[in-house]
Amino acid sequence: MASDATLQNEARTTAAALGPAAYRSRAGKPTVSVGIVGATGYAGGELVRLLLSHPNVKLVGLYGRNRDHVPVAESHPHLRESGLVIDQAIPKADAIFTALPHGVAAGMAREIVSAGSALLDVGPDFRLHDPADYPIWYRLDHPEPELLAGAVYGLPELHRDEMRAAAERAPTVVGLPGCYPTATILTLAPLARAGLIADLAVDAKSGVSGAGREPKADLLFSEVNESVKAYGLFTHRHTAEMEQELQAQGERGPMGSKTANPGVAKVDFLPHLIPMTRGILTSCHVRTTRPVSQSELDALYAEAYRDEPFVKVMADPPSTKHVLGSNLCRVCVRVDPRSGRVLAIGAIDNLVKGAAGQAVQALNVLFGLPETAGLEQYPIAP
Amino acid sequence: MASDATLQNEARTTAAALGPAAYRSRAGKPTVSVGIVGATGYAGGELVRLLLSHPNVKLVGLYGRNRDHVPVAESHPHLRESGLVIDQAIPKADAIFTALPHGVAAGMAREIVSAGSALLDVGPDFRLHDPADYPIWYRLDHPEPELLAGAVYGLPELHRDEMRAAAERAPTVVGLPGCYPTATILTLAPLARAGLIADLAVDAKSGVSGAGREPKADLLFSEVNESVKAYGLFTHRHTAEMEQELQAQGERGPMGSKTANPGVAKVDFLPHLIPMTRGILTSCHVRTTRPVSQSELDALYAEAYRDEPFVKVMADPPSTKHVLGSNLCRVCVRVDPRSGRVLAIGAIDNLVKGAAGQAVQALNVLFGLPETAGLEQYPIAP
Amino acid sequence: MASDATLQNEARTTAAALGPAAYRSRAGKPTVSVGIVGATGYAGGELVRLLLSHPNVKLVGLYGRNRDHVPVAESHPHLRESGLVIDQAIPKADAIFTALPHGVAAGMAREIVSAGSALLDVGPDFRLHDPADYPIWYRLDHPEPELLAGAVYGLPELHRDEMRAAAERAPTVVGLPGCYPTATILTLAPLARAGLIADLAVDAKSGVSGAGREPKADLLFSEVNESVKAYGLFTHRHTAEMEQELQAQGERGPMGSKTANPGVAKVDFLPHLIPMTRGILTSCHVRTTRPVSQSELDALYAEAYRDEPFVKVMADPPSTKHVLGSNLCRVCVRVDPRSGRVLAIGAIDNLVKGAAGQAVQALNVLFGLPETAGLEQYPIAP
Amino acid sequence: MASDATLQNEARTTAAALGPAAYRSRAGKPTVSVGIVGATGYAGGELVRLLLSHPNVKLVGLYGRNRDHVPVAESHPHLRESGLVIDQAIPKADAIFTALPHGVAAGMAREIVSAGSALLDVGPDFRLHDPADYPIWYRLDHPEPELLAGAVYGLPELHRDEMRAAAERAPTVVGLPGCYPTATILTLAPLARAGLIADLAVDAKSGVSGAGREPKADLLFSEVNESVKAYGLFTHRHTAEMEQELQAQGERGPMGSKTANPGVAKVDFLPHLIPMTRGILTSCHVRTTRPVSQSELDALYAEAYRDEPFVKVMADPPSTKHVLGSNLCRVCVRVDPRSGRVLAIGAIDNLVKGAAGQAVQALNVLFGLPETAGLEQYPIAP
Repeated sequence: MASDATLQNEARTTAAALGPAAYRSRAGKPTVSVGIVGATGYAGGELVRLLLSHPNVKLVGLYGRNRDHVPVAESHPHLRESGLVIDQAIPKADAIFTALPHGVAAGMAREIVSAGSALLDVGPDFRLHDPADYPIWYRLDHPEPELLAGAVYGLPELHRDEMRAAAERAPTVVGLPGCYPTATILTLAPLARAGLIADLAVDAKSGVSGAGREPKADLLFSEVNESVKAYGLFTHRHTAEMEQELQAQGERGPMGSKTANPGVAKVDFLPHLIPMTRGILTSCHVRTTRPVSQSELDALYAEAYRDEPFVKVMADPPSTKHVLGSNLCRVCVRVDPRSGRVLAIGAIDNLVKGAAGQAVQALNVLFGLPETAGLEQYPIAP
Repeated sequence: MASDATLQNEARTTAAALGPAAYRSRAGKPTVSVGIVGATGYAGGELVRLLLSHPNVKLVGLYGRNRDHVPVAESHPHLRESGLVIDQAIPKADAIFTALPHGVAAGMAREIVSAGSALLDVGPDFRLHDPADYPIWYRLDHPEPELLAGAVYGLPELHRDEMRAAAERAPTVVGLPGCYPTATILTLAPLARAGLIADLAVDAKSGVSGAGREPKADLLFSEVNESVKAYGLFTHRHTAEMEQELQAQGERGPMGSKTANPGVAKVDFLPHLIPMTRGILTSCHVRTTRPVSQSELDALYAEAYRDEPFVKVMADPPSTKHVLGSNLCRVCVRVDPRSGRVLAIGAIDNLVKGAAGQAVQALNVLFGLPETAGLEQYPIAP
Repeated sequence: MASDATLQNEARTTAAALGPAAYRSRAGKPTVSVGIVGATGYAGGELVRLLLSHPNVKLVGLYGRNRDHVPVAESHPHLRESGLVIDQAIPKADAIFTALPHGVAAGMAREIVSAGSALLDVGPDFRLHDPADYPIWYRLDHPEPELLAGAVYGLPELHRDEMRAAAERAPTVVGLPGCYPTATILTLAPLARAGLIADLAVDAKSGVSGAGREPKADLLFSEVNESVKAYGLFTHRHTAEMEQELQAQGERGPMGSKTANPGVAKVDFLPHLIPMTRGILTSCHVRTTRPVSQSELDALYAEAYRDEPFVKVMADPPSTKHVLGSNLCRVCVRVDPRSGRVLAIGAIDNLVKGAAGQAVQALNVLFGLPETAGLEQYPIAP
Repeated sequence: MASDATLQNEARTTAAALGPAAYRSRAGKPTVSVGIVGATGYAGGELVRLLLSHPNVKLVGLYGRNRDHVPVAESHPHLRESGLVIDQAIPKADAIFTALPHGVAAGMAREIVSAGSALLDVGPDFRLHDPADYPIWYRLDHPEPELLAGAVYGLPELHRDEMRAAAERAPTVVGLPGCYPTATILTLAPLARAGLIADLAVDAKSGVSGAGREPKADLLFSEVNESVKAYGLFTHRHTAEMEQELQAQGERGPMGSKTANPGVAKVDFLPHLIPMTRGILTSCHVRTTRPVSQSELDALYAEAYRDEPFVKVMADPPSTKHVLGSNLCRVCVRVDPRSGRVLAIGAIDNLVKGAAGQAVQALNVLFGLPETAGLEQYPIAP
């Protein structure tokens, strides 16, 4: 058996050959090697699906708890023809995606980055910058505050430069946004940056796949079908992310102040479960800090998203059906001529732009690939 | 053929023998005779279903445009065993329910009340007190402003006494509430009466049956299934009802003023279409005029609905599945300890408490029947 | 504490005062007292719902494993207003419904009938007459072969007289039909009785509530929605019931022989799970023993079901939507003029006519109540 | 205006430069130019979606009735970012897909092939070899019997060589299979070729998108949701295709005779509409001409589909969810050890392998492209 010193040397050698920095220095930019830890859930399965057709990625390993060379078809029958298997071994790879319950990725993070891999966490363990937020929202004392301090929030549309900077140093840790925050932050960012949000109610509707794959009684078809309910009143964990990011947009914007958007200090966020599998629609009811016109809104959003490949501003409110299977976020913003209130509505596929697709987009940013690589699929409808 | 004078005499005689006043004077309180005009739509079908098992009602006629003794099964295969038929003739009855597109019931109203029948309009033609609201919200010059002036808003929980008073005079005209307003007004009335609504966003989700039965491309299964969208931004006609009734609650309440609830002057109402057939969930985001505690809210709602047979206050947010097929409205009100905002959430079956069930409840009030007669069904789940 | 002898005496006294025979001898036919063992599942909940509005029934107890005075709303939020509670105690009652996994009711049966209650098992423990079928289909050695020998198959349309006879003796044990067999046997009985079934493929589609309420991964909304699959190939337990009953119809019919219907000796039964909550549609593909005409079929079915309150013969194929919530079985039989093959199609609500409604119907038969008591509801649509 | 002679010359010139033969002779095999006539329906939209990511195809025109440069987003909001428009002009292209109601493509066929384009009809106008079948099944006198005589049935798995031969001559006309026939024929072909089908019941279940996009009352969400029904008893037009192709397999097989499979002479086909958008499951109940073993069946199917990229033989019955969005057909065949009957079950996405995907596969065959080009997508689940 190897001594500790040997193992550390090996780790160092591996580290030198892996990760975004190593990738960028390789001649000819070969294919990025990628592993997935937590491949048996819905987000993990969607990652596999997307990466299988990514032109610059080689899937080198799938990790599932207590799995030993189990065909991927046992978890994901639709991916049977890939011939992949799932093992309980953290792959050696340029990048590791973790798609795990909260707390678990943080516990494995040190091992992953020590091996030289960039860590892209689809879960929540590296999303909140303030470690003090974890006990409050997740009842978790964060086990890796140092890694957390170096982590970036992986929403490319708002943090593309920080992500690229993070790729230049080691370890590279990315906390990928939650599904509700992705839709909501993209829908509100232009308003927040302009200091326009005086009061805010975020009323969101999600398909059931967002609740994960654990067999729970209230996720049975017979309970969900032909029903809608609100849940997580005042306590949904994604609230913290929305507050963090919308406040940051205020500071970044022309008003340059945390207090520019008083309405985002404590976001009134109410999620609902509706009888569909995929999709999130977020309806943001905004009272503005000053009167705005429709043409001002139009200009604000056109400017914000003109060059974004995945955020599409529309005149009419979007349907989740028209983003399904794609990495698109469709956004519509409208001012009520009668009351002056603003509605900003966003739609995403929670498993793509809200999870796996966004993770792939982040990978592309980190490794200098075309940002749309592997994500060019049009939505599938009806 | 009878002369005009004779016909008028007959009408007068009929009028004397019909309607709630006549019914109340009859010895032994015999069965109320009821007709339905617009029996082929979803609300009409649900009225038939409910009235078929009403112990004090005799269904004497179903009216459908261009129908001549057509079996009800052609429109409502589930009611095939009733053996009823649909004709194009306004029935002579103590009470006539109209379930028609806007403007149509108003056009038939004079004929109906002249025959001595009480008119209970499931549609919108007698909901708004101010005739000037009809051109604005319905692009309709109201053809019967006099009848409108005498009409009552048929939400028994708020207007029971006015409804009883209307039953004593002739003509008796009841404008039954819309589906969204029913859920929303019942959910907010205690807050409005207490003058607590400083700002308000009403975010509602409806099953597709609320959109009616006309074959439209965007109501096809393939378009609705696995999708959610907002619609009717800033222009949904039910907005006017909500504003009218919530303002009236403010005037009625201890604050006694239209301005007690500044947030209801122009309600921010956003409806959504979700992939289910029945049910409305209304999520009301309230910023209060002063800080409130959960116990104050609990007391307020317990007091408001203690004796109501159909409004049930719950600690947890309701699912529409748990009111389906019943006349119940389930309500939950909660204050966010972090932000002080209040969420009030209500659930109804849009075709029962939101349409046909409420109509039957109103009939019961008008004719002095037990208010729950014909409406005792428990919800059907799963 | 009472001695064993005392308890036995009490039991005997109770037995004398309970059950269908005791009920029939009571002056004035008072209300039947009923208990439900297994009240927390879907069939149990539906029994509660139906019995709450049964005019001749008093619900005296609900049994749930490891429950101690737990409000019914914890299992069935839609029944919250009933105020009922669930306990772990077998109620003393004229009749006990058991709605339990296979083998469990058989294990409790002796205790139930010893207390004088009639036992109506919604589960499979008393459906198959031959004890040797239980090890084959259920991997179960039947623990109560004596009770099984005296049990009747509780499909009133075929065994009404036997059920009445069983009510006259003690113990009274009824094995209520499964959901697929109810639909299929009623759909095929006239053909079987006429000796017409030469070959038979039964292709059935069920809503998910038929699979019960245990949280299983493949019953999650995200797995069932937007999908259909066959399951239980060649091994579905309901096959045995269909074979038993269809053969018996052959012996009962004019041909009077087990071999009259060679196609039912080994029924080719294939069930499918489809994305809906309630409903079973059974499509029976029949090759007949001799050519038949449509008018012969029409006469056969009209004759068979003319006086049945719950079986309705229709010219067009039925939709499950048009039986939902009711105890109806809609049947359509048609001969293909091109090929001479016969299609017989039946639709039921699996939780009503396929479980709880049929159980109530059987109770009515046993206790001499009007057979439709508590079951007059029209289907609810849309 | 050009004289007729000029137009004919132009047509001839165009014809020389277009179509599969012209394509094959071009140096370097440039991109195939493709147009779609009938681009506004579901099959048309799916064709656009697939072709947009086809590496060897250039979409040169979309035709829609009464459209003049209308953005594709009006019909297909999910394809908004393609920037395509729809016109009422038949495109000049190597290949034209027609996705039209029956009779319409036949009426336009002459114009299309005269322009030199290969015609691939997604509709039924060129599927049935015998013109006499059109009046029977489609109430249509075929207007182009000559073109029909030269048409091939475009199921590549069974007719790949004929399709290639058709591409070498002009005009090239392909009648693409219907959705039910695609699933059913692929599921049964190995049995038919082996002369094993003595009796056959095909019981199929389809998602609603198969019924098209015309707004019809019985396709409304509220009518379809939570319901299942059979339709088209004995008269579904796809029956003719199944009989034609299964009989042809018998003749092609080792038995070499039309009568090898007596059960396919008049297929007992029963389609059902179930509450989902996409997917077809076909359950084929087969009585065999002689006893077969599971291992014989396994060998038969493995041999038949070993090299097929899109037909996958599985040990367990497939779910439609696990083919959604892909061109796969999953097949499972099993013999009942108790009765000797055989079940063969197949699953496809009706809009992909059942329509647009198959059309693209056929295009690939005709133009000598890799058969999987543009069709490599894995299914999307959940």
